[in-house]
Amino acid sequence: MTGPHGYSKDKDAHLKRLRRIEGQIRGLQRMVEEDVYCIDILTQVSASTKALQSFALQLLEEHLRHCVAHAVERGGPEVDAKVAEATAAIARLLRT
Amino acid sequence: MTGPHGYSKDKDAHLKRLRRIEGQIRGLQRMVEEDVYCIDILTQVSASTKALQSFALQLLEEHLRHCVAHAVERGGPEVDAKVAEATAAIARLLRT
Amino acid sequence: MTGPHGYSKDKDAHLKRLRRIEGQIRGLQRMVEEDVYCIDILTQVSASTKALQSFALQLLEEHLRHCVAHAVERGGPEVDAKVAEATAAIARLLRT
Amino acid sequence: MTGPHGYSKDKDAHLKRLRRIEGQIRGLQRMVEEDVYCIDILTQVSASTKALQSFALQLLEEHLRHCVAHAVERGGPEVDAKVAEATAAIARLLRT
Repeated sequence: MTGPHGYSKDKDAHLKRLRRIEGQIRGLQRMVEEDVYCIDILTQVSASTKALQSFALQLLEEHLRHCVAHAVERGGPEVDAKVAEATAAIARLLRT
Repeated sequence: MTGPHGYSKDKDAHLKRLRRIEGQIRGLQRMVEEDVYCIDILTQVSASTKALQSFALQLLEEHLRHCVAHAVERGGPEVDAKVAEATAAIARLLRT
Repeated sequence: MTGPHGYSKDKDAHLKRLRRIEGQIRGLQRMVEEDVYCIDILTQVSASTKALQSFALQLLEEHLRHCVAHAVERGGPEVDAKVAEATAAIARLLRT
Repeated sequence: MTGPHGYSKDKDAHLKRLRRIEGQIRGLQRMVEEDVYCIDILTQVSASTKALQSFALQLLEEHLRHCVAHAVERGGPEVDAKVAEATAAIARLLRT
């Protein structure tokens, strides 16, 4: 499914957020290398996971607003497929 | 709290795992740059979150086995503090 | 917002599922009364939480398919409000 | 594994908490019967899931403080088994 998609208009903001998360993961590596206390590393893991989740929620909101809404406007069987696909993605996010 | 800690003996394995997660986050950036379909990006976010979680679970297991167990062996009020600290870390992981 | 809603047509199936979850929670009470091993109780908590989550996912899917889709068909500012509202509900589910 | 266990001393508080959760699940049934708006039901599901999770965290803390700590005091191979068992329970909670 070629773009642009709902998120494309905010690409720079999304890339900036992902680069920050990348930096957090490198930070975790430094903590492990420097024998930082386990609980402090676990706290940083929670922060990185939360950042990934808020990125996912933003993308999901834009997907609902654009890709799913456009399918509804076009009508037909594509609507059910798009809704089922979005719900399956939400289920995967819930299970992590 | 200076190391080494429970996880220190498996440092290389942990660093390898974190570098892979770092690579996944860079992969997410490429997907956004290339206007990949939203749902495929969300699927990759779930995979990265899951990888972060299994890293956290490994660290937690080693923390219980070493830091918490050594506090129990020493006895005294430190045990309650260590257990409360570990439970708070688990609660943070649950809320993400 | 009076019904019927997307889930109304499957009301009996949802009520049956909720009564089963209610039974699971009573089962947890019996386990606590009978001093069952902690880990076995925690396993039952995970099963009940998972059942609640799949109930929530079904309701969410029907909400997207009906309430959000009908807002899209009507058009206007209501669409953004409905999408934002659904995303906030998903965020709450993610944080538990 | 017969009790009493770590949680046994707070049995009444745990039973009270579980009865409240049971009431919340019955509340969900009333909301479905009365065609309450989907998002309001999802908000109640998040509240019930959060209540179940805090019950699980309390049980886990008591399990670490008693069952796991007593295994450490006795020493031997049982410690690894208890830590692995607790970590597996935490993993199940994380995946819901």
